[in-house]
Order: sequence, then structure tokens, then C-alpha cells
Amino acid sequence: MPKENLFDIAIVGYGPAAITAAIYAARKQLRCILIGEVPGGEVVNSGDIENWPGGGETDGIALSEAFVKHLRAHEDMVKIVQASITKVSWEKEGFRLHGKNGHEFRAKTVIYAAGRHPRLLNVPGEKEFKNRGVSYCATCDAPLFSGKAVAVIGGGNTGAEAVIMLQKIATKTYLLHIDKQLTADPILVKNFRDDPKVEIIYNAKTTEIGGEAMVNSLTFEDTAAGEEKKLAVAGIFVAIGALPNTEPVKKLVELDEFGAIVADRYGATNVPGFFAAGDVTNIRDAQIVVAAGQGCSAALSAGDYLSRLP
Amino acid sequence: MPKENLFDIAIVGYGPAAITAAIYAARKQLRCILIGEVPGGEVVNSGDIENWPGGGETDGIALSEAFVKHLRAHEDMVKIVQASITKVSWEKEGFRLHGKNGHEFRAKTVIYAAGRHPRLLNVPGEKEFKNRGVSYCATCDAPLFSGKAVAVIGGGNTGAEAVIMLQKIATKTYLLHIDKQLTADPILVKNFRDDPKVEIIYNAKTTEIGGEAMVNSLTFEDTAAGEEKKLAVAGIFVAIGALPNTEPVKKLVELDEFGAIVADRYGATNVPGFFAAGDVTNIRDAQIVVAAGQGCSAALSAGDYLSRLP
Repeated sequence: MPKENLFDIAIVGYGPAAITAAIYAARKQLRCILIGEVPGGEVVNSGDIENWPGGGETDGIALSEAFVKHLRAHEDMVKIVQASITKVSWEKEGFRLHGKNGHEFRAKTVIYAAGRHPRLLNVPGEKEFKNRGVSYCATCDAPLFSGKAVAVIGGGNTGAEAVIMLQKIATKTYLLHIDKQLTADPILVKNFRDDPKVEIIYNAKTTEIGGEAMVNSLTFEDTAAGEEKKLAVAGIFVAIGALPNTEPVKKLVELDEFGAIVADRYGATNVPGFFAAGDVTNIRDAQIVVAAGQGCSAALSAGDYLSRLP
Repeated sequence: MPKENLFDIAIVGYGPAAITAAIYAARKQLRCILIGEVPGGEVVNSGDIENWPGGGETDGIALSEAFVKHLRAHEDMVKIVQASITKVSWEKEGFRLHGKNGHEFRAKTVIYAAGRHPRLLNVPGEKEFKNRGVSYCATCDAPLFSGKAVAVIGGGNTGAEAVIMLQKIATKTYLLHIDKQLTADPILVKNFRDDPKVEIIYNAKTTEIGGEAMVNSLTFEDTAAGEEKKLAVAGIFVAIGALPNTEPVKKLVELDEFGAIVADRYGATNVPGFFAAGDVTNIRDAQIVVAAGQGCSAALSAGDYLSRLP
């Protein structure tokens, strides 16, 4: 294996965690390769962003561009490859990363920061109205629906937390759950069970999202009554789970029951030399600034690991 | 106790962790008070900053200003008080924060993010040349000394890590240690022990830092030989420890052996309702983006705690 093809660190991903890891690794003069699909990662899909510290009111496009520009300033140390990784395996000298189209990369360490993608409803209107009323992140977008009626789809803790955020902001919040009983913790539900501005709808199977320029309706089937019903709403929060992009590493590293990589606060996993950061890990908070912080820590961990190699 | 004086969250500190916590708490419509001394915290003292993701090349003043401006956009929910907290105590309804000049504040939860301050050498020239050649953070500032001679003061792990960063960047790196043996892990020292560009000087007690516009010399006493010696250096990295600002909470919350607050990755401490974030905690990585991420997580933890209060 020609030595010059063995990078110090292969960073998989192109979002805030991956880019921050690359910036820190480059500053440590480590030879990196960053392999990702969409420059900026899921941030690009975020619409308005008001919670990136110091960013004031910005949006997914502008913030992604700032991240990528910062990354590109380090191209002397970081090779950037726009590609999709399908498998990561370990061998004697380090890790081998297999990409689509026969790409192959090798590195002594990996920082895996490939993010996650929201589980979709897969109903008509969902894709068309994404960021035009349809959101997958209440923490990110709830404040945008001040004075409007909204629906939350999903009666688990994420949905309940979304309702708690929205009940103070929206004029009316519907919580649609597919079953006859919420799965959220009762102590969370208690916050809105008696709020007249919140209406919980059970046995509701969303069938269509409607609108013109922006969302204006949600159609669902009342599966108990066997009837189709329609709500007038300006916002729809889909909270039916998110899926970590861990398919390429599922045979390599320990995952939790949701398919997320089990990583400690410094990005260490059960595989020495394999670090993880951002939303692909079992972190509670899927927030840009948290992912960026994790990317920094994972890079410092990888640098420490490399400095201790025999 | 008048209810209106009991805040949901009291945030102590004015740096990236505190400000990010405030932004997230405000977005959750929680009534906050932020109490700190220096707007921007230690960031203000950071000189050039090249590792704030998306920030490109900025500096401590500009980044602090961006943070503070973002914070001030939330003054409807966050009362900002420039003051010094001397003691935090717990009582039935929550926490009581005692400030200098008789200030008193009460809150159901606390996010303590008061930072830390570097241990100083306390020698002539140190204060004058801070950010003009004298640095307390190699991770932050090492790249600024490309092609120059530098000295690192302190032979522990932090000092050794500073040397590892600098040996690839500086023309010459002196490592001054006060004793006859380094305390850093041998596996770290191995990286530079045989590097001709690194010179380890034992029994060195720094006595003076000299320069004109910028640092140009370091004077030390060779305590074994009883001689005064002088080095020509453009940069001096002081790595003799940092002291968490935990005096006000030392009787309230668990501290580690370095006086840092023992907090988990979400900011939880051993005291329910008392959260901590940033450099005041036992986090390994004293980096702005890590502190900001912790501030976000602590705010989400505090919000969750408040939503579950009986």
C-alpha cells in the first residue's frame, strides 16, 4: 500500500460536525480527506436559522456557505471529495472506506459524521412543502409560526416537546397521533393536556398535505371512525423519528437501538481510532452548534490518538 | 417572595457557553436572567480566532460582538445584568444568587458558565505582551507562529501538547520546565524528544518577558546552575494550568480535583436544577465551539427540567 495514500484522518460527512473536525485537524497539520455528499449537510435544508450563536438571523444556505468557505481555506491539508461512502472496514494499517463508483480511501483514523435524515411521512404534499410550512425540527423552526395554527405529527417525546414549544407561540396546536394512546412521558403531556389551545387527535393517519405557496391544510384519516378529516394549519411538524446514516458502518461499530453510533462526549466509539460526531451519534441534541462542538472534540481525540500511535 | 422575581433560569457568565444557553432558553420562551462581568467572556482576550466554524479569520473582539448582538436580540426574554456573582445557594423555591454590591437574584434553575482563567506566571512583561506574543492557548494560537521561534512554559501534558502542535510550525520550540523531569506522558514527549527543532530546558524558572511592539525575548533562571539566561523568541505559550471560576459554587456543587464542576455531556451536575457549561466544567476541550455546544445542551436540559417540575 503506497504510504502517501494513507491519510491521517478520513472524515465522512459534509455538515457542521465534519467541517469543524476538518478545520481543527488541519490546524493540527494532520493529513485529512473529507468525503461527503452535500456541502453543508442537512443544514442546507434548514430554512431560517436563528440559533447559530453569533449568526443572528441567517439561513441554511448562507450558514452552509460560510462553513464550506472556511473548510476550503484549509485545502492544503484537507482533500475534499464529493462522494458517497457505502462501507467502512478495518484492516491492519487502519481503515478502508469504500465509495460508490469504485472510490477507495484509506486512513489511520476515521471521524464519522454522516448525519441523519428525518423519517418521512411519505404522503402527497410533504416534499413540495418542505421548508414552506413542513418542518422536521421544532427547536429550529417553532418560532417561525408565531400567531398561526400548526399540527404536530407524532405522539412520542419529540412530538410532545414540539407541542410544548408551540403552545406558547401558535394560536392552535393539533397533536396527531397514529394510535389511541400517546407514547410521550405523561409528565410532558401534562404541560398541554388541559391547554384549550392544544387539541390531541388520536387514531390519526396523515394522508395529505395541501397548500399553495405555503402549507394551508392537513388531511388525515380517523382510523377509528373510518372518516377523512381536514385541518387548516400553516405549519406541520413531522416528529416520527430520524434515521442515522449508519448503513456503511453497521458491521464495524456499536450502534444503539435506534441505529445511532454509540459515542462518548469526545467522539470515542468502541473501535479504537474510529471516532464519531454530530447527529449520526447517540447525542440527545440534534443542533448545529452541538454537532460542531462534537466535531471539534472528535478531531482533538483523533489527533491525540495519532500522537500516541507506536 | 414575589413570584415575578423568580426567574426560570439564571445564567451565570457572559462567554460563548452562557450566551448560547441564553439564546436557546429565550427561544423556548423561558424567563432568563444572564449575569456576567465581561461581554463575550474570555473570547475577548483571544486575539485572532481561526477556528470558529464558518467564521474564517476573525478575532476575539469581533466574535464577542457578534455573540453579544445575538444575545441582545433576545432581551424580551433575557434580562442582562453586568455584575459579579460571589455565591450561589439553594433554597426551597430554587436558587439564590448573591452578587457584589448587594445584588440578589432568584431562579428555579441555574446554568453556571462562568469560565476559567489561565494561571499566570506573574512575571514582568506578561500582562503587557498578552496577545502580542504571549498566549495561553496553543490550540488557538499556534498557527500564528509559523516560521518563528517560540517557548512553551510548563512540562505537563498541556505543555507537551503545545510543543507537538508547534514543532511542525515554528522554526524552534523551547520547552521550559520548572523541575528536572517533565510530568507529561512519555508517549507524548516521545513525539519531540529527538526533534532537533525542539529543545527541552529543565530547572527553568521564567523571570521576565521582553519585547517592543511584540515579544522578542524570555529570561529565565537556571535554578540548577544558579544562572540567568535569555532566549530570543517571538511567541511564549504559558501552560501552567487554568483555574475554573468556581469559588461562588464550591459549597453547592461537586467539583473535581482541579476545581472544575463535574458535569455530564448535557450539563447536569450532582445538584438537580443546577446545570453547568463551558470551561468552568470538567470538559477536556477548552474551545469556543465546544463551550457553545455545551451551552445549548445545558439550556435544553434546563428546559426539560422545568417542564417536568410538579
